[in-house]
Amino acid sequence: MTINMALIGAGRIGNVHAQTIMNMIPNAKIISVADYYLPAAQALAEQYHIPLATPDHSKAIHHPGVDAVVIASSTDTHATFMIDAANAGKHIFCEKPIASTLSKIDEALATVKDAGVKLQIGFNRRFDTNFKRIKHAIDSGEIGTPQLLHIISRDPTPPPIEYIKVSGGIFFDMTIHDFDMARFLFGDVEEIYAAGAVLVDDAIGQAGDIDTTHITLKFVNGAIGTIDNSRQAAYGYDQRVEAFGSLGSASNANVFPDQVTISTGDMIKRGSLPVHFFLDRYMRTYIQELTEFVDCIQHDKLVPVSGYDGRVPVVMAMAAQQSYAENRPVKLSEIEKH
Amino acid sequence: MTINMALIGAGRIGNVHAQTIMNMIPNAKIISVADYYLPAAQALAEQYHIPLATPDHSKAIHHPGVDAVVIASSTDTHATFMIDAANAGKHIFCEKPIASTLSKIDEALATVKDAGVKLQIGFNRRFDTNFKRIKHAIDSGEIGTPQLLHIISRDPTPPPIEYIKVSGGIFFDMTIHDFDMARFLFGDVEEIYAAGAVLVDDAIGQAGDIDTTHITLKFVNGAIGTIDNSRQAAYGYDQRVEAFGSLGSASNANVFPDQVTISTGDMIKRGSLPVHFFLDRYMRTYIQELTEFVDCIQHDKLVPVSGYDGRVPVVMAMAAQQSYAENRPVKLSEIEKH
Amino acid sequence: MTINMALIGAGRIGNVHAQTIMNMIPNAKIISVADYYLPAAQALAEQYHIPLATPDHSKAIHHPGVDAVVIASSTDTHATFMIDAANAGKHIFCEKPIASTLSKIDEALATVKDAGVKLQIGFNRRFDTNFKRIKHAIDSGEIGTPQLLHIISRDPTPPPIEYIKVSGGIFFDMTIHDFDMARFLFGDVEEIYAAGAVLVDDAIGQAGDIDTTHITLKFVNGAIGTIDNSRQAAYGYDQRVEAFGSLGSASNANVFPDQVTISTGDMIKRGSLPVHFFLDRYMRTYIQELTEFVDCIQHDKLVPVSGYDGRVPVVMAMAAQQSYAENRPVKLSEIEKH
Amino acid sequence: MTINMALIGAGRIGNVHAQTIMNMIPNAKIISVADYYLPAAQALAEQYHIPLATPDHSKAIHHPGVDAVVIASSTDTHATFMIDAANAGKHIFCEKPIASTLSKIDEALATVKDAGVKLQIGFNRRFDTNFKRIKHAIDSGEIGTPQLLHIISRDPTPPPIEYIKVSGGIFFDMTIHDFDMARFLFGDVEEIYAAGAVLVDDAIGQAGDIDTTHITLKFVNGAIGTIDNSRQAAYGYDQRVEAFGSLGSASNANVFPDQVTISTGDMIKRGSLPVHFFLDRYMRTYIQELTEFVDCIQHDKLVPVSGYDGRVPVVMAMAAQQSYAENRPVKLSEIEKH
Repeated sequence: MTINMALIGAGRIGNVHAQTIMNMIPNAKIISVADYYLPAAQALAEQYHIPLATPDHSKAIHHPGVDAVVIASSTDTHATFMIDAANAGKHIFCEKPIASTLSKIDEALATVKDAGVKLQIGFNRRFDTNFKRIKHAIDSGEIGTPQLLHIISRDPTPPPIEYIKVSGGIFFDMTIHDFDMARFLFGDVEEIYAAGAVLVDDAIGQAGDIDTTHITLKFVNGAIGTIDNSRQAAYGYDQRVEAFGSLGSASNANVFPDQVTISTGDMIKRGSLPVHFFLDRYMRTYIQELTEFVDCIQHDKLVPVSGYDGRVPVVMAMAAQQSYAENRPVKLSEIEKH
Repeated sequence: MTINMALIGAGRIGNVHAQTIMNMIPNAKIISVADYYLPAAQALAEQYHIPLATPDHSKAIHHPGVDAVVIASSTDTHATFMIDAANAGKHIFCEKPIASTLSKIDEALATVKDAGVKLQIGFNRRFDTNFKRIKHAIDSGEIGTPQLLHIISRDPTPPPIEYIKVSGGIFFDMTIHDFDMARFLFGDVEEIYAAGAVLVDDAIGQAGDIDTTHITLKFVNGAIGTIDNSRQAAYGYDQRVEAFGSLGSASNANVFPDQVTISTGDMIKRGSLPVHFFLDRYMRTYIQELTEFVDCIQHDKLVPVSGYDGRVPVVMAMAAQQSYAENRPVKLSEIEKH
Repeated sequence: MTINMALIGAGRIGNVHAQTIMNMIPNAKIISVADYYLPAAQALAEQYHIPLATPDHSKAIHHPGVDAVVIASSTDTHATFMIDAANAGKHIFCEKPIASTLSKIDEALATVKDAGVKLQIGFNRRFDTNFKRIKHAIDSGEIGTPQLLHIISRDPTPPPIEYIKVSGGIFFDMTIHDFDMARFLFGDVEEIYAAGAVLVDDAIGQAGDIDTTHITLKFVNGAIGTIDNSRQAAYGYDQRVEAFGSLGSASNANVFPDQVTISTGDMIKRGSLPVHFFLDRYMRTYIQELTEFVDCIQHDKLVPVSGYDGRVPVVMAMAAQQSYAENRPVKLSEIEKH
Repeated sequence: MTINMALIGAGRIGNVHAQTIMNMIPNAKIISVADYYLPAAQALAEQYHIPLATPDHSKAIHHPGVDAVVIASSTDTHATFMIDAANAGKHIFCEKPIASTLSKIDEALATVKDAGVKLQIGFNRRFDTNFKRIKHAIDSGEIGTPQLLHIISRDPTPPPIEYIKVSGGIFFDMTIHDFDMARFLFGDVEEIYAAGAVLVDDAIGQAGDIDTTHITLKFVNGAIGTIDNSRQAAYGYDQRVEAFGSLGSASNANVFPDQVTISTGDMIKRGSLPVHFFLDRYMRTYIQELTEFVDCIQHDKLVPVSGYDGRVPVVMAMAAQQSYAENRPVKLSEIEKH
């Protein structure tokens, strides 16, 4: 059985999902694509022989034969499209974050629940071979009881300042992935303390954001964690985790395009810098997350990243924001009270 | 312009090429597939919507619109199909080795030359990011004048003994890749000394072959090289090169599925063994070699691996065979005389 | 000119200093040794042919010909012996920490200042080749403007619970070294937030201490730093730093007794665990710090680790203690006010 | 009981041994030192308070109380001094090689045997933690049955051309260490094939020697080995071994003065080059070999490197020399026949 999909959003990540579904997942295909900018939808449709290209997400969702909807549009539309897809009885794969307010998120999740459809959130990094191996080390008891977790997540270069201004801030735009990673590896968090600074570009500070942050997490299980974010690492994309437990540690190095060492009278160096672009680093995770989503539909399994998993990192980002603003540890329960 | 291809051979490597061409190379497609075992051709045709599946290689070659032929059939058929394709005026991508005798090879190459078509040989390892980086270190002068070259190339496990019996021997079946790598990196070879032994499996010796060999190469440029082959490395597929020159060295480590380190009270270990299967190790090289082949056709460029590049490693294997048999260094010129 | 030294304290670290001075520093020797437990002083005197062994630190200090005093006795005696040595006009090398109260430290430093003698504090890790190389990367501009600093400092096993009870707590006993390292690398700190937990051994918690801590530092220069301490790392002594700046990063791996890799069908592993014992990890730093101390005396140079450098980490430990107790960031200026 | 030693030879290696014995081995001391250049002997005597300095090796050997003789003089004197020491009933530690002719070696070994004294040869690399760990991997069965051995041994820079002229050639001067390492790890060798070239410096060729060699060894146990020697590695002292067996491999990386990685926008590099000088690389082996020698005397144990172990590498060097000269594999039994 082939799963027929509607794709909403034909931008960069929409193109990634289209390529994945059409070339890499034998038992799935896209049969309708929507983008408010019609030429983008049309270009994708032409490239992959997709029957329907439309500016209207609703038409794509209701196109005959659609089993599931992939939402890859801009963040502010996620919840609305999710509600529409759920009401149409379609399974949903939605890019993170679901929305920027808890009320909007909760409305969308309630609709999904009532509709009884599957919903998977696009926290793709969970599917990375490195982080899966570290997760396995934790779950299998290989490193004992979890005690300390360090997540380093640095971008090669900051996004354009115009993007920064509408991004929602570093905690919602960048750290959100790391909040999910923290939960994926060590479970739920109770309290957050966020230190932050503008060290990369003053313009980011003038836009009301920070570009460097170091966050301390206290997990419900008693462990302590940290997240280190910078908008700019000179040497490229830096994505590392160290999980430390009573019996040892599991940590990963960055990924390089080759494994070459060059030794000269001046230095011993790597043959190349780490892979620079997030698509190079994580390409296989995009294939894997959709492969599992399709598998969950076909065999009626639980999705690997639930709607609840999409909600909690937003709460964490809110707590981090407040902690940074007030320079004090903030409990997640404080956020939920509002 | 799309390059239309005929694929001859629908076995393992034929499937790899079909997947590559149909999913990964936008400006190429397969429009006919031949396999003497028709169901194999039909299965491929169905999967990739290929119009013609036939047991007759000639029909595939002459199918209307075919620009180029990919020969992925068994070794003993390579030269014949190459000659047929050349006579039909089609460009040719042919798996190595071209043939097992020099007369057959020379006949095929002469036909290709007369036909004026392009011919690329499938020495895919040249397209590996590791070996390309080492090649760059040599060509750019980064490591100075080449002096010593070490190639380590060990398989995870020996092939079935039935395969060994018809393989032509380790030098033709396994070392052939390394002979090409030696030429790719350091240029032509003058003399070969091959030591060999049966250390992995006595059955291999009983089949008249060896399973372990260490070969010394004297390059025309005065440098010295070695090739270390074993049919079995307990830890997996081992593919490494060290190029040493007057200004330094370039070497590569193996490729791992993750970059995780696990540290416990017992040991510090990698999160996994090296990638085990040659398709995992070299998947991208199959995409890259055909991408370049298509590009050479479209833009009338020289192919990166010529027919001559396909011929010389066979001469080298013959010299190694003789060296091992007689336990003395053998010059390549001795082989050419016959 | 040979520098003649009095050694006070013939315990473990006293023995290390004796071995260093007598075997490794050609232009220095010990001519008197004091330990309140006389047999310890006598054993050292016999081993190294030291003329005077005494239970009385004052006699050792005033022994004819003494130029400098090495204080390696228990922490509570450091300040008193420092004052006596300063009043006797002797140069002083003193183990850290100087004392556990600021008033006592300030009294000792004032006496040293008035006496005009040299005082070096035994923060030996500054002399480690790894941390010196990282320091050089920072000072030379190799990694640009400092932005983030991570110090990981984990012991192989906790000390005996009886030791924990009198240690002054993890911040004074263990983190003190890391506070110094933070200052050594990134300069002075303004504010500290310390998260802590009892994760290794409940008995440590019952003794009123914690065994795991993660500390966030805000540096005066705007950078953010962290210290990760655990009383127990299953795989051994873990001593690593990552300094991250606008142009890149400098980080070190642990030190291993060999550089061997063992590869089998089960795993790829290191030939050994990291060096386990702090004397193995840091032996050369003990030689280096005393070599430089002797050199500073002989050539009247500034010592590399001043009395002030000995004072500030105590203030930092006090701030960390208060931060942990009150679960809020604490400024160093709050401590100084008391 | 302290072992009293006579040291013959006060040059570079004599100084290393003196420092080791006087500072590092509590139960041994030097009580006489001889050097035909008396001021060298006198300088050593003064530095370490050695009672007798003499130009006459015989006086040093017969100095009252001498238990053992350390021969660190020039190679051509080794056998003579060994014979004299043996005849005086002293245990002997002798630098390699014993002599340059088999007849001279055999005479010396016969004398030692008749005298019943202990004789240890200074193949210090056997005591390196890296090579000991690899040896352990072999002996313990960790890597199964030995199949392939690769020794890489490259110097940072060639010695002065005047030294080359009297060195006896690269096989006797440089490879001799690696011949011993091959035997230490994989046992005795049956046949040798040596390829060689002048690639580093033409002056070395004009002096009748080569500066680059690659040697193939066939071991008695059926395994195959190689030795790669170059007089010049741009990046420093290169000392690596890979032992490959039926169950896996054991290999070592070079030794670095620090474990720092510097990552910038240009490159990921090591903080330093490998340790450059053989004394930095192997200092601990000099301590270890003499510590074990002293222990063997005190507890009447078998020495770890016997006179026979000193003889065989000379035979191997002769075979390599002949193989290179005649460009054919040479059996060790051919050398013994002469």
